[in-house]
Amino acid sequence: MAGEIAEQPGAVSRTLEGLRPLRAEVRRLAAGTRLVTFIARGSSDNAATYGRYLCEIHAGRPASLAAPSVATHYRARMDLHGVLAVALSQSGETAEIVETLRWAREHGARTIAVTNGATSALAQVADLALVTQAGPEVAVPATKTYTAQLAALTELVAALGPDDPAFDAAQDRVPAAIESMLSSAPAAEALAGELAGIASLVVSSRGFTYSTAQELALKVKETCLLPAIGLSHADLEHGPIAVLRGDTPALLVAPPGGPVLPGITALAGLVAERGSRAYGIGGDRAFATACAAVLPGPDLPEPLAPLALVVPGQLVVEALARRLGLDPDRPRGLTKVTQTGGASA
Amino acid sequence: MAGEIAEQPGAVSRTLEGLRPLRAEVRRLAAGTRLVTFIARGSSDNAATYGRYLCEIHAGRPASLAAPSVATHYRARMDLHGVLAVALSQSGETAEIVETLRWAREHGARTIAVTNGATSALAQVADLALVTQAGPEVAVPATKTYTAQLAALTELVAALGPDDPAFDAAQDRVPAAIESMLSSAPAAEALAGELAGIASLVVSSRGFTYSTAQELALKVKETCLLPAIGLSHADLEHGPIAVLRGDTPALLVAPPGGPVLPGITALAGLVAERGSRAYGIGGDRAFATACAAVLPGPDLPEPLAPLALVVPGQLVVEALARRLGLDPDRPRGLTKVTQTGGASA
Repeated sequence: MAGEIAEQPGAVSRTLEGLRPLRAEVRRLAAGTRLVTFIARGSSDNAATYGRYLCEIHAGRPASLAAPSVATHYRARMDLHGVLAVALSQSGETAEIVETLRWAREHGARTIAVTNGATSALAQVADLALVTQAGPEVAVPATKTYTAQLAALTELVAALGPDDPAFDAAQDRVPAAIESMLSSAPAAEALAGELAGIASLVVSSRGFTYSTAQELALKVKETCLLPAIGLSHADLEHGPIAVLRGDTPALLVAPPGGPVLPGITALAGLVAERGSRAYGIGGDRAFATACAAVLPGPDLPEPLAPLALVVPGQLVVEALARRLGLDPDRPRGLTKVTQTGGASA
Repeated sequence: MAGEIAEQPGAVSRTLEGLRPLRAEVRRLAAGTRLVTFIARGSSDNAATYGRYLCEIHAGRPASLAAPSVATHYRARMDLHGVLAVALSQSGETAEIVETLRWAREHGARTIAVTNGATSALAQVADLALVTQAGPEVAVPATKTYTAQLAALTELVAALGPDDPAFDAAQDRVPAAIESMLSSAPAAEALAGELAGIASLVVSSRGFTYSTAQELALKVKETCLLPAIGLSHADLEHGPIAVLRGDTPALLVAPPGGPVLPGITALAGLVAERGSRAYGIGGDRAFATACAAVLPGPDLPEPLAPLALVVPGQLVVEALARRLGLDPDRPRGLTKVTQTGGASA
């Protein structure tokens, strides 16, 4: 896992370079569609959450996350003409995702696959495959295949939105920003030491970086085997904040600026008032002051920050798993190709 | 809270009766729309999750859950013509929900409010208000206003789908089914006794009843102040199942039959194999056999089961809060009108 975390600058750089020439093709396929629906599960679903915010805010296109069981179990009939269905699966072999994309196509949707499996079943079902260039991922928890998915989504959305040279230029800065995050390793190790005795963890954010919080909560659950709750800070503030206590701290993920940062900073203060601790990733100076400890985030515009902000969190998860005596490369209960439901469900 | 749990048969019955005459008006307003978008937060968001499955499976209409910050914080510009935006708020005064519905309307959406506040700001912003008849709710955790929202959603979706006399007849049986669930109180008290020493809880289900699992996980967090994770069983099986252990059992919510029940039953077996315990609500005989203890569910078709299945869970949450020495009517950290973000966020 540690080795693959370090490979992310290359994975993202190759993915961006490989997909940029496909923008015109994405545009042709998406012509006349009104809604983008993302189909995914697990960490790919967290990537889809990022894609959804990017699509709506950057490209001004309504987007949604599909509920796969509507297709795979209830076999709903729906008119999906005018829908661009984008399915994400790192292996491209998750049966329910392949089946849901096929269902969407049969009901009239245009279809795109985002996958690291160039010859996978998912790539073959889709009208167009956006293949990520992460290379083989050996550790079971997804890291470089996840950030490569985010990179692919920035290309997808750049194609769906208006031409924006500033966005393209910022995309080109992402691999270096990820590289700079790798120097957080010693600080991540120290934070893992502080977290080693916790009973559970709440991971929270809002907006673009909500996806990062969800992804880190999933990583903590599957790699560190700890109950971790990923929550929008809007949902956390209303009610669930009451679960925070000494052995249940909060990890807050914050963008470098923008409209949600003041609220996340205020939340850090609230957590401390409740007698718990807020640890932070990213944010600005005021955010750092409000947190018990912070790992710095990247110098990227907010819409692209999630591609690098997840990296210090991955380092914390990897270090925490080792401290807990677990093998971060092969967590108990996790398999590489997500197969849910199966024929009997 | 206990008193208001018991008032649910009347709340649902009055709501169904009050809204049925509005079906023609809903149909007129929805004419020509292609997508239903639900806008909500907290327990209303869990009701929206139910509405989304019902809308797609029963009415065959694509549906999605909105991300309010896209409107309130990022002020995205989107063409929402052809969208039916349905905002849910029990009080009708949650500022971010009112603001998001107003934004949707300004961008071309047709708008509906589902609220218990007949003269609320939300009711005034919408083209049409579907007012629930739960009466005043005094306890802070929502119970009867939640089931009344579900009832309103069954009327909304009945109007959007084809005429279906069998669905209408089953709706009429819901209040009696809820009434029959109230007799679970002693069994709920016993289950609360078993749960009194847990460190955290995973609540899981799939399909229509996924919304019930999410709602119960939220209730456990805000009323019992325990970390509770609400997860689709598809997501739980892949990875996060590893968090289950002696002090972190699973509560599985199962419909009385249908395509997701075999998978949920198999999950109960998996949980036991991992050395943890699975407690159940609903399901059939095989499900009961696979669980350590079960509270029976209602005799209703799967699409309507969530209106009654939540009730045994509410009884468990109320009993567990009392056992933990907490006041279920006024949990720490929870306020009645959800106000998130605010002007500074």
